[in-house]
Amino acid sequence: MATQRAEQGHMLIGQSGGPTAVINASLVGAIHEAQRLDAVQGIYGALNGIEGALQRRIIDLRRESAATLDALLNTPSAALGSCRYKLQPDDPARAVNLMRELGIRYFLYIGGNDSADTAHRIAQAAAEMQYELRVVGIPKTIDNDLPLTDHCPGYGSAARFIAAAVMDSARCTEALPGHYPVKIIEVMGRYAGWLAGAAALGQRTPDDAPHLIYVPERPFDPAQFVQQVRATVRRRGYCVIVVSEHLADAQGRQIGEAQAQGQDAFGHTLVEGVAQTLVDLVKTELGLRARFDKPGDEQRMATAHISRTDRDEAYLAGRMAMRYAVRGVTDKMVTLVRARGPRYACETGLADLASIANSQQLLPPAYLNADGTGMTPAFLAYARPLIGDPLPEHATLRGERLA
Amino acid sequence: MATQRAEQGHMLIGQSGGPTAVINASLVGAIHEAQRLDAVQGIYGALNGIEGALQRRIIDLRRESAATLDALLNTPSAALGSCRYKLQPDDPARAVNLMRELGIRYFLYIGGNDSADTAHRIAQAAAEMQYELRVVGIPKTIDNDLPLTDHCPGYGSAARFIAAAVMDSARCTEALPGHYPVKIIEVMGRYAGWLAGAAALGQRTPDDAPHLIYVPERPFDPAQFVQQVRATVRRRGYCVIVVSEHLADAQGRQIGEAQAQGQDAFGHTLVEGVAQTLVDLVKTELGLRARFDKPGDEQRMATAHISRTDRDEAYLAGRMAMRYAVRGVTDKMVTLVRARGPRYACETGLADLASIANSQQLLPPAYLNADGTGMTPAFLAYARPLIGDPLPEHATLRGERLA
Repeated sequence: MATQRAEQGHMLIGQSGGPTAVINASLVGAIHEAQRLDAVQGIYGALNGIEGALQRRIIDLRRESAATLDALLNTPSAALGSCRYKLQPDDPARAVNLMRELGIRYFLYIGGNDSADTAHRIAQAAAEMQYELRVVGIPKTIDNDLPLTDHCPGYGSAARFIAAAVMDSARCTEALPGHYPVKIIEVMGRYAGWLAGAAALGQRTPDDAPHLIYVPERPFDPAQFVQQVRATVRRRGYCVIVVSEHLADAQGRQIGEAQAQGQDAFGHTLVEGVAQTLVDLVKTELGLRARFDKPGDEQRMATAHISRTDRDEAYLAGRMAMRYAVRGVTDKMVTLVRARGPRYACETGLADLASIANSQQLLPPAYLNADGTGMTPAFLAYARPLIGDPLPEHATLRGERLA
Repeated sequence: MATQRAEQGHMLIGQSGGPTAVINASLVGAIHEAQRLDAVQGIYGALNGIEGALQRRIIDLRRESAATLDALLNTPSAALGSCRYKLQPDDPARAVNLMRELGIRYFLYIGGNDSADTAHRIAQAAAEMQYELRVVGIPKTIDNDLPLTDHCPGYGSAARFIAAAVMDSARCTEALPGHYPVKIIEVMGRYAGWLAGAAALGQRTPDDAPHLIYVPERPFDPAQFVQQVRATVRRRGYCVIVVSEHLADAQGRQIGEAQAQGQDAFGHTLVEGVAQTLVDLVKTELGLRARFDKPGDEQRMATAHISRTDRDEAYLAGRMAMRYAVRGVTDKMVTLVRARGPRYACETGLADLASIANSQQLLPPAYLNADGTGMTPAFLAYARPLIGDPLPEHATLRGERLA
């Protein structure tokens, strides 16, 4: 690792990609660290990430009060605004010229795979243009799909929301199984099943919901799905199913993808979304009433489910990114490194931005059970510390019958 | 009100209809009151409401620990199990015969309109059969659509969830408006807009989400909807919309209803659900990316959003139902009566079960703004005390631009 001390200069930070419940904690961590470092003069924020920076939409973060920064630790979503902007060929050089003009020596970028690619290309351009710029990425994604880091800030809070929401929602089905015996809950996660798997964190007994989890790592077989739902309803009287937003069959066809013309993989027309497609399949093939919950963006954002652990780690990643940059690190992303030993603890490391940008971390096979519809104890041990405080306990009646 | 003291006897309680986050608080309130009343001997619970009672699926609630009862105050869903069972012609007499056989003198039934009808018919049958039975209903519904009560236990917690979820989810759209500029959030409420209206409780400024609310009390006009969304996106850059699950056009056609053959109101085929239909409409008519959240049963059940006020009132309604029954009241439902004056307070009253059963309380016109897409200060003043503690405050940056 390079440790040369940078020139004094300004710092610019941006937020990119899908917001999370704790992405602002990383922002605040970086600002707090910048405030105490002599090498950092101006503390600037790019509105809507690199897209806004290239439009010179930049704010002065030294003008924000300490109270605002503290409150941002419990405020979900990207306070600077975010973007999903793919760099055009000229953009890296434009960005470096802008930073040179403004005297920016430190560029911190909070985001996922695509944001790592953006940051990497700007770091490369700065090197080619011989402008001394330190570029450090701060990981962020509810999808938990970045490689080279134990997990990603943002995942723990979203996982906590999903575990709690599935616990809650399943109780409704359990209390009234005859009404809608099959419930499907569609969760995010892109092409990885980390979020869907998190639903298992609320299970207390093997019979608890979710009874079936379908993740993108396994090909989805509609016939097998129908058989598994039928078997669960026979055994339990109802079935609560968690599905990832992206499922594909063995031929790689997305389940529930909208098609302007023709039919989807199951022969239905104009159906959109995995959950609705599977609800239709249950109705058609099993003749059972089914419905779905789709928490949508609430799973990214739930203020009430911010994991303290997740928030603290997001803050730490922000602090450390600033510290590493001033130490001379560039073209790297901060990673989270889990300490060995029985007690959960986490520190930070570094990985090449380029190796983050072009890779995706899927669920390892050891985290999925034999038929791929449930999580193993190894997954639960991995994920449980990340969601922070224990989940609520729900009481049940012992229910002793009258003699 | 009859005040004759009842014979000593057993009490039977059941839970019916869609569960809520606080329906167990009513159960516990009734049990606690029964425990301290000499007139009540056995305290029995019907599993899955009247449907289970008729199958003699009855448990002994005196066998439950104090700790379990306390924990049920924070456990959503119906601990006894619920039902949606329409009484058959012989059922009221069968129920009365069962109660006579078991020595049950008090029958408390927690539920909404349909449950009030069930309880009323059993009360009538008991009177006709000259069996002295005191039947008292305890109101319960997230839909808040029961008449003759200021509001319904269950509504405050669901309203709190919706207000918080819309605040959270809207921040995601606000941070990244270019990605999906239109967000639609589909909420429950049957044929009343109380829950959809609750989304307005999170607004801090007139520009805050939700920008448009569509409730069942007003006919839905697709052309006007398209125009209103277009205008909001032009003004704000994005648009967050809350829609009730049941919307109908001026001809009474349900929006988004599945049709086995043919087309829905907008000419789309096989689309199901309001939110998906409106997403398609936005895409087609405005060419904008749109997506939807559908919290589903989580809005009934969210442990993290139990309103303390709602829970306390649910508990009070349960206690008072037991107390009224022992005082000789029958064929009535407990109501909530809001005290006059600047400080919110609530006590209980009574209404005829028959007048609850056959009526539905919709949003009064004074609670909807002129074009029917937003809520008035009168609604906010009505609803705000019901959601308990203040909603979380989200911080925003002052965002001073670089000179």
